[in-house]
Amino acid sequence: MNLLQQLCSVHAPSGYELPMKEFLLKHIRKTSGKWRTKPQIIEGEDLLDCIILKFGKPRTVIFAHMDSIGFTVRYFNQLLTIGSPDVQTGTTLTGEDSKGPIECSVEIDDDQHAFYKFGRQIDRGTTLTYKVDFRETVDHIESAYLDDRLGIYAALRVAENLQNGLIVFTCWEEQGGGSVSFLADYIYRKWKVRQALIADVTWATDGVALGKGVAISLRDRNIPRRSFVDRIVGIAAKNNIKYQLEVEGSGSSDGGELQRSSAPFDWCFIGPPSEQPHTPNERVHKGDVDEMIRLYDVLMKEL
Amino acid sequence: MNLLQQLCSVHAPSGYELPMKEFLLKHIRKTSGKWRTKPQIIEGEDLLDCIILKFGKPRTVIFAHMDSIGFTVRYFNQLLTIGSPDVQTGTTLTGEDSKGPIECSVEIDDDQHAFYKFGRQIDRGTTLTYKVDFRETVDHIESAYLDDRLGIYAALRVAENLQNGLIVFTCWEEQGGGSVSFLADYIYRKWKVRQALIADVTWATDGVALGKGVAISLRDRNIPRRSFVDRIVGIAAKNNIKYQLEVEGSGSSDGGELQRSSAPFDWCFIGPPSEQPHTPNERVHKGDVDEMIRLYDVLMKEL
Amino acid sequence: MNLLQQLCSVHAPSGYELPMKEFLLKHIRKTSGKWRTKPQIIEGEDLLDCIILKFGKPRTVIFAHMDSIGFTVRYFNQLLTIGSPDVQTGTTLTGEDSKGPIECSVEIDDDQHAFYKFGRQIDRGTTLTYKVDFRETVDHIESAYLDDRLGIYAALRVAENLQNGLIVFTCWEEQGGGSVSFLADYIYRKWKVRQALIADVTWATDGVALGKGVAISLRDRNIPRRSFVDRIVGIAAKNNIKYQLEVEGSGSSDGGELQRSSAPFDWCFIGPPSEQPHTPNERVHKGDVDEMIRLYDVLMKEL
Repeated sequence: MNLLQQLCSVHAPSGYELPMKEFLLKHIRKTSGKWRTKPQIIEGEDLLDCIILKFGKPRTVIFAHMDSIGFTVRYFNQLLTIGSPDVQTGTTLTGEDSKGPIECSVEIDDDQHAFYKFGRQIDRGTTLTYKVDFRETVDHIESAYLDDRLGIYAALRVAENLQNGLIVFTCWEEQGGGSVSFLADYIYRKWKVRQALIADVTWATDGVALGKGVAISLRDRNIPRRSFVDRIVGIAAKNNIKYQLEVEGSGSSDGGELQRSSAPFDWCFIGPPSEQPHTPNERVHKGDVDEMIRLYDVLMKEL
Repeated sequence: MNLLQQLCSVHAPSGYELPMKEFLLKHIRKTSGKWRTKPQIIEGEDLLDCIILKFGKPRTVIFAHMDSIGFTVRYFNQLLTIGSPDVQTGTTLTGEDSKGPIECSVEIDDDQHAFYKFGRQIDRGTTLTYKVDFRETVDHIESAYLDDRLGIYAALRVAENLQNGLIVFTCWEEQGGGSVSFLADYIYRKWKVRQALIADVTWATDGVALGKGVAISLRDRNIPRRSFVDRIVGIAAKNNIKYQLEVEGSGSSDGGELQRSSAPFDWCFIGPPSEQPHTPNERVHKGDVDEMIRLYDVLMKEL
Repeated sequence: MNLLQQLCSVHAPSGYELPMKEFLLKHIRKTSGKWRTKPQIIEGEDLLDCIILKFGKPRTVIFAHMDSIGFTVRYFNQLLTIGSPDVQTGTTLTGEDSKGPIECSVEIDDDQHAFYKFGRQIDRGTTLTYKVDFRETVDHIESAYLDDRLGIYAALRVAENLQNGLIVFTCWEEQGGGSVSFLADYIYRKWKVRQALIADVTWATDGVALGKGVAISLRDRNIPRRSFVDRIVGIAAKNNIKYQLEVEGSGSSDGGELQRSSAPFDWCFIGPPSEQPHTPNERVHKGDVDEMIRLYDVLMKEL
């Protein structure tokens, strides 16, 4: 799981996905020679910081987002959130500005405003992310940013055996979106692909627990088309995947942006449940990740 | 009005519009031979569960949404809302899961959470809708789901005499949208049509009452282009349609999604006012529906 | 600054941008003969009430919005807001309906509902805007609707010397958007332009003050791509522009709609800070406007 640890450690909050893009391009160029199918790598200014990997003749696309939650330095010692971090006073943040590397701590006041404590002023607009403490036991992984470096990790594992399909690494998911709408348009116009799987991490709830299998989401704030989700559940059952059905009323993902895009996408969110989401201690069960990868393998063949 | 009653009875909450699509395709294939112009029926995976009817050389499109509000079964006996039902403890819901048909009742607790009461566990993700009790008097219709089965009904009545135009049946309107953005793109690219009428049901308010005519909405949360709305009001006045001008600050419709689409649509919401919206007892005046159909007839000719 | 005063005086709230479109087309047709490059003027029904000016071979586009905040007359003496006016009892509003010109005053009740006081009933749907009192001192300008008539003014000043680029006047910015999504699609498909500058007015805050230079926004509710914003700050520094870096957690602009459009736009908000935003007394520093124009001049050359 050394790759997952490396992915979690890349500083790339929404809007500053460039370091993750560079890490991924380097990794993919180095390893894809050994993959079953060598993908075409599509990137550049017309995709902003997103990456598309094209394998064979694609029918289905996997989306995984590169960005993480974090903080932007404002004026004085004020911090603004990027996405919705669940943070407590004393948490350590890291980053870098014109004066050098930063390791500071957060203070939350009674009005839930965030501030940094550091020996010097930090440049306006500097982004800060959780200091990553990656922990692994026999069954569990605990770290900041499993959301969604685990989605990227799973997609890269699926890539090893993929013959036909698209894998897309997206931006801005945590901060209201901004890349999936143009990516959806691009993908649909170019390859007529309109089936999408959202490889992301969800919440453990009273109905979805760690270790009980990969979660297939029947809905969150958005509701995917039932006939598509039913096909996915059918394929999971037929292939003896260990899965749980999630039903949520709030929360969203790249699926929501896809739903409102200018292309007629079907989509379904599939990923492991996580405890303590958006904290430095996101926690998932390794078995759920294995089932996730198995499910994506069969879905990319059978959908 | 037998057709309207049938339309109200179809179980098709947002995300599961398939039963309504199938009902409509069957009905249209059976009856359109007798229409003044036989339309081209466009449907299939690239439109998800939406349907487009094309008559002659279209200049204007009518949108009516197929989906209704409802509920999704979560874990235990929890219910999540689809759209914003206005429901009270004791209301009867119906649906079907792997174990058979369901007729259960709702309970609302002090925190406004909804639960079902039924003799057995219902499958996760099962959708439930109001049990329909369709009532008709000399002047009024009262039923669940007049929103927006009445819009579909009116569009089908307009279809009988339509020579040039598009009629589009959409999905997900009650749950934040998801079909109009790709439909707008499709329609504009294919036929250069950019004038839209939203055939939907609105609220009776202190300024808009049942029996006083079809409502032409000057705005809701979204504001259509004034020059387009002015043309519509002018055509209504010239043709002696009985109409009322609605002015709202909240609420939205397929018009809002059209406004933010990638195509330059003008749009206007035109429909009858309803009392007790989103309850099992939505109530409209038949005269307002008649005026609605008359107005659409002339608008499709004169716009 | 006579042009700016004229621009502020045009009645054109969101949805009724037509008067501003007509004013601008007349002005541009009259003056553009003396500009360094005579632009192609693109307008018409396929752009609704928007205007595109095309100069030479464009690489970058300036967006400035034509609409203002205001009010819509509802039933009885009720007013609905257009956008988010910051208004107090006694403020004077102007407009016109079928019975003639209107000059009335606003009343705000304890529930923050707005009403008009006027000698007669005003037609439903009539739009009202602040009565404009344009004031100028050596250093400052104070008026209603500097947001965003100042953006239009600055864009027109930049137009005088522009050789390559697009200037686009947009609609609905104050009321949730509705034109930028189709304009983005149009511009990107036609000219492959995907670099955008948002010429708009921002808030003075505890970190951004009047007279300290043009504000370059690093983020608001939306977060632009950091590599694009960094290039802009670099160009501003190299050219000795007096600028301030803004970092906000809320607020949005045409940049937000661009971010979620179907085209891969980079964007950055650049404009003067204003005191008392959305009141009849918006106040900016002339020096900040001068720096804004200088910065746009160099950005349109160097980006």
